[in-house]
Amino acid sequence: MLPVPAEFGRLRVVLVASRNPLNIGAAARAMSNFGFLNLRVVNPYEIAFREARSAVGAAALLTDAEECKSVAEAVADCGLVVGTTAGHRRELRQPLQRLEHGASLIRKQLVSGRVALLFGSERVGLSNQDLSHCHWLMRIPTRAEHGSMNLGQAVAVCLYELVCAHNSVGTAEKEVPATARDLERFTGVLLEVLRASGYIHPGTATSAEEKVRRLVRRLNLEARDAEVWLGMLRQIAWKVRAEEKKEG
Amino acid sequence: MLPVPAEFGRLRVVLVASRNPLNIGAAARAMSNFGFLNLRVVNPYEIAFREARSAVGAAALLTDAEECKSVAEAVADCGLVVGTTAGHRRELRQPLQRLEHGASLIRKQLVSGRVALLFGSERVGLSNQDLSHCHWLMRIPTRAEHGSMNLGQAVAVCLYELVCAHNSVGTAEKEVPATARDLERFTGVLLEVLRASGYIHPGTATSAEEKVRRLVRRLNLEARDAEVWLGMLRQIAWKVRAEEKKEG
Repeated sequence: MLPVPAEFGRLRVVLVASRNPLNIGAAARAMSNFGFLNLRVVNPYEIAFREARSAVGAAALLTDAEECKSVAEAVADCGLVVGTTAGHRRELRQPLQRLEHGASLIRKQLVSGRVALLFGSERVGLSNQDLSHCHWLMRIPTRAEHGSMNLGQAVAVCLYELVCAHNSVGTAEKEVPATARDLERFTGVLLEVLRASGYIHPGTATSAEEKVRRLVRRLNLEARDAEVWLGMLRQIAWKVRAEEKKEG
Repeated sequence: MLPVPAEFGRLRVVLVASRNPLNIGAAARAMSNFGFLNLRVVNPYEIAFREARSAVGAAALLTDAEECKSVAEAVADCGLVVGTTAGHRRELRQPLQRLEHGASLIRKQLVSGRVALLFGSERVGLSNQDLSHCHWLMRIPTRAEHGSMNLGQAVAVCLYELVCAHNSVGTAEKEVPATARDLERFTGVLLEVLRASGYIHPGTATSAEEKVRRLVRRLNLEARDAEVWLGMLRQIAWKVRAEEKKEG
């Protein structure tokens, strides 16, 4: 019925800390329905994941699912990282896209590179720590009185919209975005310099770290630029370190 | 978040011969998420329906659901009756609409009258007898190799598309870009730090300066972020300068 475009193979559906085997299985079924076959799970509740995997009729994609220890690991090879949210939380600090628009941005990106699409746990969704790895967030337009969707249904709706967002496949030369690994490296050196120069104080380290991570993701760095920025920052870090040694 | 249009109250979601309480519950949850509160069930497996109704957290709409003896009874007061299908069956005799198009037809109809949207049982979908009550059918664009969707997910996807059918007006909130003045300030401090740390050598200063300026422009900084980056950079510059003074 629906021919599956080759670029669907570049999407990584990432389930973070899922607790319910039925929901993991349902997410996998929706993926199979819509032709997205690459699943990664971050710290699933171990028994739930085993049960989901051994369930009768579990798609091959569940068997092939990659288990990751952290969100950073699960998104490392992806040039675009998108989180999903019910969107009723007030404290969100990332750009928020409606699903229709976000899906067409993702489709564009899939033409040239990998994209990670993150779903949080059934109970609490994605944490601020998880969200800080995302370039932007996508929300499903549920109503305010009952915003929180079932995990399997949220996956189904997002992937359906991805299938339908066909308007996007342009022919223009695409820039290659920096991978999450590059961005994390850049973030690491930046944090070191900010600590050394007193911008980040030990007391506020965690929230500052998340803030900086989000800032870096909003830069939408291209791969070739990321390398240059990293080189600059390393030189600055070296200078700061050298000075500190002299002091010590 | 999403204001529920009055016409949503004219939709009747009709589950025909559902067998699984979890699926009935999931369908109800998706209805509540998207603001369609009127459920009718035709010949449900009696125990399944009782279980779904009495489940903890069951939506009020499950309690209020109307039980019907036949499809005819369930659609009697509706001016448009639409069936859903995976669309891989060859013997279909009704007009078939893709979900996107069908949803916008349904939305038009809801402005003035009631519409019934039918979902079949998990195992066999809608029978030819059931389908004969429908004006036309709507299919979800799943792939040929795995067309059959979970009931709750199919309901979620159809209702999502109904919500979006009128929402074609883009709603992406525009970010305020940093002014050229902000960018130039940022560039200036960055150059100072790069010089102090030895990244830029006196001999190549001019071309390096242009290169850095272009790099900064490619960041597409938002106004609020530009301010934060400038603050960070000034702190780093202060540190580097302070160290140099000590040296001098």
